[in-house]
Amino acid sequence: MEQVTVIKVGGAIVEDAERLAQLLDRFAALPGQKVLVHGGGRRATKVASALGIESKMVEGRRITDAEMLEVVTMVYGGLVNKNIVAQLQSRGVNAVGLTGADMNVIRSHKRPKKDGVDYGFVGDVDKADGHRLLSLIRGGLTPVMAPLTHDGMGHILNTNADTIAAETAKALAREGASTTLVYCFEKAGVLADPDDEGSVISTINHDEFVRLVANGTISGGMIPKITNALAAVDAGVERVIITKAENIGTSTGTVITR
Amino acid sequence: MEQVTVIKVGGAIVEDAERLAQLLDRFAALPGQKVLVHGGGRRATKVASALGIESKMVEGRRITDAEMLEVVTMVYGGLVNKNIVAQLQSRGVNAVGLTGADMNVIRSHKRPKKDGVDYGFVGDVDKADGHRLLSLIRGGLTPVMAPLTHDGMGHILNTNADTIAAETAKALAREGASTTLVYCFEKAGVLADPDDEGSVISTINHDEFVRLVANGTISGGMIPKITNALAAVDAGVERVIITKAENIGTSTGTVITR
Repeated sequence: MEQVTVIKVGGAIVEDAERLAQLLDRFAALPGQKVLVHGGGRRATKVASALGIESKMVEGRRITDAEMLEVVTMVYGGLVNKNIVAQLQSRGVNAVGLTGADMNVIRSHKRPKKDGVDYGFVGDVDKADGHRLLSLIRGGLTPVMAPLTHDGMGHILNTNADTIAAETAKALAREGASTTLVYCFEKAGVLADPDDEGSVISTINHDEFVRLVANGTISGGMIPKITNALAAVDAGVERVIITKAENIGTSTGTVITR
Repeated sequence: MEQVTVIKVGGAIVEDAERLAQLLDRFAALPGQKVLVHGGGRRATKVASALGIESKMVEGRRITDAEMLEVVTMVYGGLVNKNIVAQLQSRGVNAVGLTGADMNVIRSHKRPKKDGVDYGFVGDVDKADGHRLLSLIRGGLTPVMAPLTHDGMGHILNTNADTIAAETAKALAREGASTTLVYCFEKAGVLADPDDEGSVISTINHDEFVRLVANGTISGGMIPKITNALAAVDAGVERVIITKAENIGTSTGTVITR
């Protein structure tokens, strides 16, 4: 069966020229077929600030009003995406930058107001086109996906990069590809002891997750992250790996499986 | 033989929401296979200005220093390109936004200093990949091309949209497609009398061009425009049409042929 690795990298790496170059070296060296999904929130915040636009966040999620939508469309779809694509080309990777609007690969709908919070132009994913993505990959291309989608009615929407990565991996799995989803993280994996980088838990499945939450090993922001990873493996993704960007291509990290 | 129409629209239309919507309606309604090439210079100038970056021009060409390169990468590759793609999707056109870096479709090199002028990060085109573009088109996709290229060494470069359109049309022609290149213009075509919109010259070939320049009918900025159009038809493009955006899909305009 065809093997595809979907790697998600966040803003902290993407916006540090040196770390990005190292990540792209490792990504280019990865054997097999692959997809890169990137964030860029910090850069968007900086550009917005330089334009006199204030970034408003609710529980870590950006409120995307009309002005901020222009900023993220510029920063994610243009600045970050095209620089990654050009740098991958220089490493012999035939990259193609995509938002969800391009080739209609990810359709979403504007998130309705909830509990009095209006996130603005934020898109919740309806459908990722795994067939189209897989045919690009089979044609020797490497999709580089920006965290932007579209609603099919002419509007770009801002969508969380973790979600883009998960929906992309699930869509590829539905097409029959054996798919690994890698979330690059600030730590080497899920740690049994948060102060000990050496205490990476090597594998977590449903049962272990329940046990680790019950005994307090997994708490806070790691709970939704692993819940989403388990949902991805339930939806057919072979495995989800949580690791440091520096460890891509090695066996270090936490593997989440069924 | 396969027919492809490459349409280039400039900043004045792209940056006026109403005119852009009308243009995209007409573009979507055009029969056959097509490519859209867009500018966006005015918008780049506005965003640069809001960021406190001054736009420097020499003979109508933008000087692209490192800061301005970031602005044009954001505006052309992100804001303008992705909004056009999303709007075409809503009109049933399966658009894919591309810079030259994406799929390595247009490779360029940084323009050397000339006559003491350093244009900065401006790319002169080496090669457009007509084979790749034609295979996208045959796959039912409509390329939407931003005026950005790459040098193969990891750098995005700013490239004039007229040049992108001409190089794209020539590359498609080299692959055997019967290619029409349309330059949207502020006037209905090349006018025999600049004050009379009804005086459109219907066709111009090499001989007529020489005659029209000699008798002063064609002068100033029209000379390089038509010289480039004649170079495109010499390189295999079937015809170049200079017309108003409002006339796309009609027979109005000046047709430049061999």
